[in-house]
Amino acid sequence: MKIGFIGLGRMGAAMAANLVRAGHDVTVFNRSPEKRRALLELGAREAGSVADACHGEVIITMLADDTAVADVALAKYGIVESLARGAVAAPVFGRPDAAAAAKLFIVAAGDPSALAACQPLLDALGSKTLAIGTQPSAANLVKLSGNFLLAAVIEALGEAIALVDKAGIDRRAYVEVLSSTIFPAPAYKTYGGLIAEGSFQPAAFAAPLGFKDIGLALQAAESLRVPMPLASLLHDRFLRLLAQGGDSLDWSAIGGLAAQDAGAARTAGADGASRSRAVGDKRAQDR
Amino acid sequence: MKIGFIGLGRMGAAMAANLVRAGHDVTVFNRSPEKRRALLELGAREAGSVADACHGEVIITMLADDTAVADVALAKYGIVESLARGAVAAPVFGRPDAAAAAKLFIVAAGDPSALAACQPLLDALGSKTLAIGTQPSAANLVKLSGNFLLAAVIEALGEAIALVDKAGIDRRAYVEVLSSTIFPAPAYKTYGGLIAEGSFQPAAFAAPLGFKDIGLALQAAESLRVPMPLASLLHDRFLRLLAQGGDSLDWSAIGGLAAQDAGAARTAGADGASRSRAVGDKRAQDR
Amino acid sequence: MKIGFIGLGRMGAAMAANLVRAGHDVTVFNRSPEKRRALLELGAREAGSVADACHGEVIITMLADDTAVADVALAKYGIVESLARGAVAAPVFGRPDAAAAAKLFIVAAGDPSALAACQPLLDALGSKTLAIGTQPSAANLVKLSGNFLLAAVIEALGEAIALVDKAGIDRRAYVEVLSSTIFPAPAYKTYGGLIAEGSFQPAAFAAPLGFKDIGLALQAAESLRVPMPLASLLHDRFLRLLAQGGDSLDWSAIGGLAAQDAGAARTAGADGASRSRAVGDKRAQDR
Amino acid sequence: MKIGFIGLGRMGAAMAANLVRAGHDVTVFNRSPEKRRALLELGAREAGSVADACHGEVIITMLADDTAVADVALAKYGIVESLARGAVAAPVFGRPDAAAAAKLFIVAAGDPSALAACQPLLDALGSKTLAIGTQPSAANLVKLSGNFLLAAVIEALGEAIALVDKAGIDRRAYVEVLSSTIFPAPAYKTYGGLIAEGSFQPAAFAAPLGFKDIGLALQAAESLRVPMPLASLLHDRFLRLLAQGGDSLDWSAIGGLAAQDAGAARTAGADGASRSRAVGDKRAQDR
Repeated sequence: MKIGFIGLGRMGAAMAANLVRAGHDVTVFNRSPEKRRALLELGAREAGSVADACHGEVIITMLADDTAVADVALAKYGIVESLARGAVAAPVFGRPDAAAAAKLFIVAAGDPSALAACQPLLDALGSKTLAIGTQPSAANLVKLSGNFLLAAVIEALGEAIALVDKAGIDRRAYVEVLSSTIFPAPAYKTYGGLIAEGSFQPAAFAAPLGFKDIGLALQAAESLRVPMPLASLLHDRFLRLLAQGGDSLDWSAIGGLAAQDAGAARTAGADGASRSRAVGDKRAQDR
Repeated sequence: MKIGFIGLGRMGAAMAANLVRAGHDVTVFNRSPEKRRALLELGAREAGSVADACHGEVIITMLADDTAVADVALAKYGIVESLARGAVAAPVFGRPDAAAAAKLFIVAAGDPSALAACQPLLDALGSKTLAIGTQPSAANLVKLSGNFLLAAVIEALGEAIALVDKAGIDRRAYVEVLSSTIFPAPAYKTYGGLIAEGSFQPAAFAAPLGFKDIGLALQAAESLRVPMPLASLLHDRFLRLLAQGGDSLDWSAIGGLAAQDAGAARTAGADGASRSRAVGDKRAQDR
Repeated sequence: MKIGFIGLGRMGAAMAANLVRAGHDVTVFNRSPEKRRALLELGAREAGSVADACHGEVIITMLADDTAVADVALAKYGIVESLARGAVAAPVFGRPDAAAAAKLFIVAAGDPSALAACQPLLDALGSKTLAIGTQPSAANLVKLSGNFLLAAVIEALGEAIALVDKAGIDRRAYVEVLSSTIFPAPAYKTYGGLIAEGSFQPAAFAAPLGFKDIGLALQAAESLRVPMPLASLLHDRFLRLLAQGGDSLDWSAIGGLAAQDAGAARTAGADGASRSRAVGDKRAQDR
Repeated sequence: MKIGFIGLGRMGAAMAANLVRAGHDVTVFNRSPEKRRALLELGAREAGSVADACHGEVIITMLADDTAVADVALAKYGIVESLARGAVAAPVFGRPDAAAAAKLFIVAAGDPSALAACQPLLDALGSKTLAIGTQPSAANLVKLSGNFLLAAVIEALGEAIALVDKAGIDRRAYVEVLSSTIFPAPAYKTYGGLIAEGSFQPAAFAAPLGFKDIGLALQAAESLRVPMPLASLLHDRFLRLLAQGGDSLDWSAIGGLAAQDAGAARTAGADGASRSRAVGDKRAQDR
């Protein structure tokens, strides 16, 4: 298919490459042009503007936030002006490694015939696509709720690890127990590992993006009048992380706040040399 | 091995049967004698008292709460008086169906030689045993923290399901999406299903037991000075459930409170027979 | 002074009357004209439109929410088009009875000379004016934070009263003890009394307005990156109250939710005949 | 009256002195004898043991915690063995300065005739005594609930002050506005002032004692099945303060945690000598 692809960050670059490899005719656009090079070498075409990327049958955006989406969508010569109708929402679950491996989970909603037309693309990007209705907004709410559930896992693991750690139990062994018994889901292994190591950089999904999604979930909850106390707790955790300077950390860094509250100083690194501390301690050290 | 087994509830009866089937010499004791019958038919021996069950190499208790354990352990002619030293703590994760299928997850801690001696028994009861140190108390803390993590899943699912439900998304399809994509852990399928159906009876693990475990986790957290705000939230959820008369419900019923807060009146049942679903609504109906 | 006064609800009508009585030349406007009558009899002039009310030196708005303010301020021939510069923000604390008695507390911010010019008006409306800086927005933030502190009092009293009530202590005697000893502030007497009686109608300050102010405080907190967990708790309480149909109740009705959570059925009235129940129970009764 | 007085800390010493000045025959006991000297000079008698202090009509304890009370009450030759029946519970509200000025608020419960007999003593200690029933335990629950309400004020003020401070509003002026308008209760002036100054030492009521009282309130709430989410929040705040080394701080130091979460580095001191203010910053400085 003829595809326009806008946004070549860690997720987007991996996904666009998969589409090229699957034989699609992909025209890419990114604000900073240096990111396009690898794609062009792989066989993608270059668009000089958003409008140039909108001549195909499908356009995919993989942008950091709604402002960025609005910019490319609503601008003069933007997506909305440049493309035909038939919207499908298909948010993805997965981190950059899953994007590279074409193992994203995709939740799609929209007109059934439009969905069917997009299926080959979705197959090139992910291992599974689940349809959740005909309203595109439903897919976005499911995506937001999924990120809420993942953030809840991070918070719960953060508290549990702070607890067993202070009791003298090995953090890594503990995460191994959890992820190989009652919680055989990648999220527990991935986030449990990051929290046990206290390793929140580089960010695969940055804290401000996690904060944004929890905020959007809470906005939807307010419109629908659904009190979500755990989402409120997560909101306050992210806000605190950002207030303390955590903008460049992975969103799993909220899982380090429980240890910070417990006054725990942590060490990481098998060699005993490298030293990682919980977020707040780290900052104290840096001052 | 020669084993004493005390406590023949839904979990204990299934586990004791597995031990008999694995060829062990099992002597069972239960306060209400009628529960012993099926075990005796399977080949177990009957003990007339706790002390009578304590003549073997190993004694296993599967009791509802600490008071019950203290009763059998500390009483005149109880376990402590009647058994040799060499304690191993080996709490299990899993619901009655996992116990029956010998697919429990077991976390064990204690003296390595004592642990090795128990291994054949643990193999007859579960699909996996993970050693977590030499302090028996460590295994218990891991068990408590595991139940905290499960309760966190229930609360998070309860809020997410209340949200998407009020947005008009099908609850069962939503749980199917979650458990087949980002959360391929049985807990999400099991508890998500129960919450989506609003089906909290009969209790596989009763709410007062969940409340007890969250309380014990918070006690440990207080001793170790580890603030756990999510555990506090769960504590308040369970307390509210019990205050509203939920003692006989499954602990996953706290996952119905978010819908109750959202004022949701739900109907369930494939047959179209509407019935009230959220915990509070159910009670209002019963009055 | 020549004053335009827009918004004649319970608060505004009492305040405009005080200005007329203090000898000022007051022109009133209200969307529903029947509310102007009493003011006209007292000596106020009538404006046929917002613009007609904007010919004086000062214009005061006493409207329910920001949408209403924006309507009269930003409309064609609205306040912004019709009035000279020199803004002063002077939000008031107090319920309708305090407005009628000219005993409001006023927090003012703005240009010092503009503030001085308004002082006679403020003196006619309240018992005390406190200047809090030259930025009008500062006065609004103080107002919002004051309503946050009042809502915190309501929540705290709601929980404390639910506790002592279930222990068999008389709720009214308890509130009397508190308000005559450690908490000699009117808020404790007023809200404690309403919660003890379970009497949340008619609304002196309606729940949706309280919810709005907590929401605005949380928005300011988010912009400034200040996590406020107690404000988040209050947000969830209000959202639950509204989700359960509490739009017409006084905002102190969130103080009835703790008793609802505790499963408490309350009786009120010395004669034993009248029966008041906590918010949720009341609704159950009404169904 | 003939009175035994046990416990001569900052509160007890001031109270015992007031009883001596009121003409009562007071025999004092304290574990560390040096604290008795000032009382003996004032005219009190010295007891060599708890039992020696129990020969009078009334015995008053003013001890830091329940362990200390249990020690003197239940020990061999302790209070319970040494005194006649007729218990009255009369917990007091007030800080050491109120104790010295005989302006404590006293909440009393017990047998009416026993209460009447104690009235002269209570009059010598406080400005007001309120009877709350015949069950001594009721007075203790009211005392605990009062400390819960005070801690709620501290938390609410801590969040509000962190908010307005980050918006550039002067903290002291803000507290002055609050305490002279909507919150004319000493608690707002006292705790607002301490939080605005970031001055949490010396402790008039130490953080571990506040933590203990919130814990006892939550225990009562659990027994009575009354969920108290705000009390849970306060519990977590105190636990965090203690985990971070705040044992010697005044309990109002939990009011500094919101500013710590907001990443605020504050300076205080009219002399312009900057010093670090928020709890965590203070610790960072001390390392």
